Amino acid sequence: MADTEVTRTLARMASGLAIDDIDDDARAVARQCLLDWFGVTIAGASEPCTRLVAEEAEDQGGHPQATLVGLGRKLASRQAALVNGTASHAHDYDDVNMTLSGHATVAVAGGLLALAEKTGASGAEVLTAFVAGYETACRVGALVMPGHYAMGFHSTATAGTFGAAAACGRLLGLDEERMARAFGIAGTMAAGLKSQFGTDCKPFHAGRATEAGLLAATMASRGFSSRGDILDCAQGFADTHSKHFNPEAATGPAPGGGFHVRNNLFKYHAACYLTHAGIECGTRLRTGETLDPADIVSATLRVEKGADRVCNIPAPKTGLETKFSLRMTAAFALAGIDTAGMASYNEANATDARLNAIREKVGVDLVSGVPSTWSEIVIETRDGRRLSAEHDSGIPADDVAAQGHRIAHKFDMLAGPVIGGNRAGALKAAVMAIEDQPSVADLMQLAA
Amino acid sequence: MADTEVTRTLARMASGLAIDDIDDDARAVARQCLLDWFGVTIAGASEPCTRLVAEEAEDQGGHPQATLVGLGRKLASRQAALVNGTASHAHDYDDVNMTLSGHATVAVAGGLLALAEKTGASGAEVLTAFVAGYETACRVGALVMPGHYAMGFHSTATAGTFGAAAACGRLLGLDEERMARAFGIAGTMAAGLKSQFGTDCKPFHAGRATEAGLLAATMASRGFSSRGDILDCAQGFADTHSKHFNPEAATGPAPGGGFHVRNNLFKYHAACYLTHAGIECGTRLRTGETLDPADIVSATLRVEKGADRVCNIPAPKTGLETKFSLRMTAAFALAGIDTAGMASYNEANATDARLNAIREKVGVDLVSGVPSTWSEIVIETRDGRRLSAEHDSGIPADDVAAQGHRIAHKFDMLAGPVIGGNRAGALKAAVMAIEDQPSVADLMQLAA
Repeated sequence: MADTEVTRTLARMASGLAIDDIDDDARAVARQCLLDWFGVTIAGASEPCTRLVAEEAEDQGGHPQATLVGLGRKLASRQAALVNGTASHAHDYDDVNMTLSGHATVAVAGGLLALAEKTGASGAEVLTAFVAGYETACRVGALVMPGHYAMGFHSTATAGTFGAAAACGRLLGLDEERMARAFGIAGTMAAGLKSQFGTDCKPFHAGRATEAGLLAATMASRGFSSRGDILDCAQGFADTHSKHFNPEAATGPAPGGGFHVRNNLFKYHAACYLTHAGIECGTRLRTGETLDPADIVSATLRVEKGADRVCNIPAPKTGLETKFSLRMTAAFALAGIDTAGMASYNEANATDARLNAIREKVGVDLVSGVPSTWSEIVIETRDGRRLSAEHDSGIPADDVAAQGHRIAHKFDMLAGPVIGGNRAGALKAAVMAIEDQPSVADLMQLAA
Repeated sequence: MADTEVTRTLARMASGLAIDDIDDDARAVARQCLLDWFGVTIAGASEPCTRLVAEEAEDQGGHPQATLVGLGRKLASRQAALVNGTASHAHDYDDVNMTLSGHATVAVAGGLLALAEKTGASGAEVLTAFVAGYETACRVGALVMPGHYAMGFHSTATAGTFGAAAACGRLLGLDEERMARAFGIAGTMAAGLKSQFGTDCKPFHAGRATEAGLLAATMASRGFSSRGDILDCAQGFADTHSKHFNPEAATGPAPGGGFHVRNNLFKYHAACYLTHAGIECGTRLRTGETLDPADIVSATLRVEKGADRVCNIPAPKTGLETKFSLRMTAAFALAGIDTAGMASYNEANATDARLNAIREKVGVDLVSGVPSTWSEIVIETRDGRRLSAEHDSGIPADDVAAQGHRIAHKFDMLAGPVIGGNRAGALKAAVMAIEDQPSVADLMQLAA
């Protein structure tokens, strides 16, 4: 690997990216990523893990440089990155990229927005830097997958640190040489173990990655020295953190061509990811076929068998349990319950007689050889119809504009209850027109 | 490894350690470690790498909780830990532990002292916590060596993070359960690549480790959740960061029995570590045999052959080059130049005719099968005497009191020129009597 130039190539790509290089689809998805980030971060701001990180940050103090989203105050940019990064991943409701095997947006956006607010960067600069960071996170992921994740590293945290460094470095205008050094500093800070999933450390990883990337870029801009080939060198990041090394995948085009951000996968339901395809199927039948749940005789939900040990609680009793119940989430979808907001997953719905009557009609059929993100539903009705739908939540949307409407709805459901409908509407409008914002500081103020 | 309890055992040891458990020798060496830390940190405060980290910290701001050593001001405890940790390793003149294959003191002390100053802890509490942290760093090192370092990880940074967490956790009074969680948070932040040696990132690793350990302990004390078995669990720290796993070495007694800190190795010369044994030999002949350098006909310095590519500059021209010249450092020793202070390694000495005349008489004999820390010198004199001495810098001192005198001299050479002789003397006295200090805040003020 010593004769490769992956670090240099990715540094050149990130430092050289201009707004005009980014095609309309990629720009649109990038705006959606940012809007979705604000939604999940505002919703995550009041979670216990975020509260603890914010309390620690307040205890340390700092100049009021950047907004703690949803918390109505400011702290130093690194502190804001750490707090907001943790909040954004607190519900695990943030977007995903399969090339990274992780969450590029939360690793990149927190540090980038904190830095942009501090420096008064424009919206167009932020959008460009966001794409530079997103692409870098995915490219570093591509370099070391699948071995990196399989070894036990949380790629959101590790490859994500490079993404944050790239975004912040692009915003600071680092040239190729300094960007490569920012990657070096990022690479020697990158950490995060998958075995911490299920603890507060998982969202903390996103906070740490986005803060460390911000620090790496800032230190490189100050002239801090570092190797400029950390991805390639013997005992560098790739060498120590994976048995795989795929330079072509790292430096080549994204799957399908164009930008990795175009392949971003959004979550639309505040429930376990493996319930999402079933919800999509249920919703499609209800709305497309105007199916009355009372007419259902039986419903069969076909999912990959691995879901059995993740989200197959047959008769949930609490709001949290409904999030991990294939039957109940399908019943929600068939009954028209809004699955995007947090509020639907409550005890009242879990114990509602009408919803339970639908749930009782749903059978789960565990099958092999299909993606874990895929589901099919087959419904028999009283009048003898046989309706079916299938969906794979792991495939990027064809219709970017339609995706935008769904993200806007999700954002409304998450942000409205916290910052109020009016402010949420203004923030949404500002993010959707981010390229026209002379400074993102006003936009961050709306998210305070 | 899943049925081991290394994390629990080390957490119990660290949380349960009391001042009365620590024998006199270990206490004395621990005080020497702290005094030496102040010396190297004060000397490292003005280095470019420290200046950049301090500028970045000032730019972020923070409550004035802890002293930036040698810089005359205060910042938040985490910022102070990062700045002081970087300063302490800036010259690579800090102490070493072979079990860790790294620098336990710099990983532990920066965060601990910053926290202690913030909380107003007593000197006895700090000494106890320091030993708890030092032991933990070495025990985690023992768990994963030699594979960890061989893979490319900088154990000062990685195992060091656990050490800092243990020290800070002990100071905060964490019980076994919370200490184990502090280790979990530390383990998922632990990072640092050996391939960054030779860049500003190497001292930065010490700063990051000691800051991260402080953060881990603080977050655990706030109730942040984490796995309690990060050292043992599948895809935990040991599993992902080494192919070796030595639970007995981790939980058993230190080499030689007693405390790991008793095996601490101090550096006495501000030059490459591989020149140290040769300097010791030269000094011993000069002082023990009252050898006049003018009487030397020839001198042969025998060292392990690996030193050839590290520190065998035959005719150095600059102060920095003298630090990497076996011949010149031996000449310094034979001529009675003080090799402890930074000031001796200057261009005037590099080009001094008398010193160069001695240097010309020194031949370097590269041999195999001896430790890299070992040297032998053989000198022929005009009056036909044949003098010889040998030394291994890798063997802990027998005489702890004598070691204390040497550390005190080194401290004077480092701290005096920066903070003045009077203040250096007061600081030295305070650290040597640390167990009697009601609060370390006064002591830190002396190091400001």
